[in-house]
Amino acid sequence: MATAPQADWDPYASGCPSREVLDRIGDKWTVLVLGELAESGAKRYTALRRKLDGVSEKMLTQTLRALERDGLVRRTIHPEIPPRVEYEITELGATLREPLRALKLWSIDHMNEVLAARAVYDRRIGSASHEPGD
Amino acid sequence: MATAPQADWDPYASGCPSREVLDRIGDKWTVLVLGELAESGAKRYTALRRKLDGVSEKMLTQTLRALERDGLVRRTIHPEIPPRVEYEITELGATLREPLRALKLWSIDHMNEVLAARAVYDRRIGSASHEPGD
Repeated sequence: MATAPQADWDPYASGCPSREVLDRIGDKWTVLVLGELAESGAKRYTALRRKLDGVSEKMLTQTLRALERDGLVRRTIHPEIPPRVEYEITELGATLREPLRALKLWSIDHMNEVLAARAVYDRRIGSASHEPGD
Repeated sequence: MATAPQADWDPYASGCPSREVLDRIGDKWTVLVLGELAESGAKRYTALRRKLDGVSEKMLTQTLRALERDGLVRRTIHPEIPPRVEYEITELGATLREPLRALKLWSIDHMNEVLAARAVYDRRIGSASHEPGD
């Protein structure tokens, strides 16, 4: 599949790598990391960790590594003593800037509507069981 | 926080509900379910399950329930024998159509670049350890 033409990628198909990429790019930590790097330029690990309030070291490390591997983030080691490591968004990562910004803004702009919908749902469902059925 | 004005929602803040909503809307199953409902109209559970190749029953049920609770999907029980249950996108859900379509298209359009970046990364890293450092 690695040599298939672009048109063949289909995230609806199980096993297509585009599904895994879709999973990665929509991940909330991806959205927040790339959003921060897009807006503020190169950042050190600790600065990112401070910005992403509450993120665990393990989760941030995994996220950065996956983003680097996918070519969305560049990790640079500046040869100083001690070495300074910085993360910045790549050209490919920058093509995600607007789509991810749209997601982030949606989650802010529509928060009140989502909370209102939840209140209605929770009142309606209560403790009753709710099977999907068909 | 539930009564705070819109401008106060901040997915960078731990505990802000907008982070959880961001997590939900970027989820690959959300992208695929809402994409299908946006394009094809109301769908039964089994039709959705068939379209989302490889999704488990548990995952699809959880996804639909969360989307219904958040007001993004409407679940209608048609009073027939046996009852027919259908899922359709709501007006609120439709506001996500373009942002999510952009994500899905990105994962298709940039798949080759991502695979190329991975090949470079994997060759460079090999079996060497790769600590994040700072």
